[in-house]
Amino acid sequence: MSKSLEFLTEALRRLPGVGPKSAQRMAFHLLQHDREGAAMLSRALGQAVEAVQHCVLCNTFTEEEVCDTCNDERRDRRLLCVVETPADQLMIEQTLTYKGLYFVLMGRLSPLDGIGPKDIHLEKLVARANDGVVGEVVLATNFTNEGEATAHYISEMLKARGLRVSRLARGVPVGGELEYVDAGTIARAMLDRRAT
Amino acid sequence: MSKSLEFLTEALRRLPGVGPKSAQRMAFHLLQHDREGAAMLSRALGQAVEAVQHCVLCNTFTEEEVCDTCNDERRDRRLLCVVETPADQLMIEQTLTYKGLYFVLMGRLSPLDGIGPKDIHLEKLVARANDGVVGEVVLATNFTNEGEATAHYISEMLKARGLRVSRLARGVPVGGELEYVDAGTIARAMLDRRAT
Ligand SMILES: [Zn+2]
Ligand SMILES: [Zn+2]
Repeated sequence: MSKSLEFLTEALRRLPGVGPKSAQRMAFHLLQHDREGAAMLSRALGQAVEAVQHCVLCNTFTEEEVCDTCNDERRDRRLLCVVETPADQLMIEQTLTYKGLYFVLMGRLSPLDGIGPKDIHLEKLVARANDGVVGEVVLATNFTNEGEATAHYISEMLKARGLRVSRLARGVPVGGELEYVDAGTIARAMLDRRAT
Repeated sequence: MSKSLEFLTEALRRLPGVGPKSAQRMAFHLLQHDREGAAMLSRALGQAVEAVQHCVLCNTFTEEEVCDTCNDERRDRRLLCVVETPADQLMIEQTLTYKGLYFVLMGRLSPLDGIGPKDIHLEKLVARANDGVVGEVVLATNFTNEGEATAHYISEMLKARGLRVSRLARGVPVGGELEYVDAGTIARAMLDRRAT
């Protein structure tokens, strides 16, 4: 097999969930049927690696220093919703029930995988929540074991600093991941959020 | 979501078998945990699109005009084995039972998908098989309906031009795809190949 093709197959395996057979299949498909797609993906990856950084306020992916959401003047700056991922934030946005700001952990506490408080940027969250404007922090981590543990940890940490902390109501199915829950359920859970 | 991230998610969907959710997951994973992998994949794609072409003799992917296999002086130039994909060729090579050359169709006849004789380079195959040196063409397309139909079509076409044509013995399970069959079975089928 040609060197470029071997390198491409190897590189495709860096994608999550892609094994050796799928990588080979993808490489053949792109070269045989979609070179335009391959060139587009090459540019998109290069551009994303180059341009995408983390919002200094909410920690989500953005090309600016501060993301569009954090810059939005119409949002209620007294509310800060903590989510695990940008996908979770999108889901909450789609419910149209929340008008505050966000903090994106980019993960969850997971001692078994060696993911501790530093890996999910909790110092940055504490600084953000203590800006003197935020009056309530809404915890919207997943309702999995790890998400619940993360919520509990953050809740204790922020309450010790005198902040009011709430948690999405358990309208979200136990064990469920926000990304796969319908917007209606999340909307209800947002309205029913309770102090922790 | 940032523009670069949207573009990347869209581009990842060009990969076969990748839907919107997986594309988003892949994009987040690369940006959050493996920017080195993203940069590597970007380079690999760019390089492959730039460098990989088709061997003028056997039609497989290569960076040269003629691929290493076709250039290999130790191979028996009287035998030409026809396969659907480079992956199938690799499988046959692994059996160590075949010392001839190859022709890679890069597909199979599939009228329902609009894939006809031109799409699988049959004119190039005819010219290749008629070089005056090839004495036997071994058909090693898959034993699926489409692979069998392709073998039948090629067989009739080459026999009409006075060439000897054989087919891998049906040691390969009916309905099976070469790529997923063990090397021992393919080896037996190669030894038992029969004239068509
Ligand atoms: Zn932000
Ligand atoms: Zn070749």
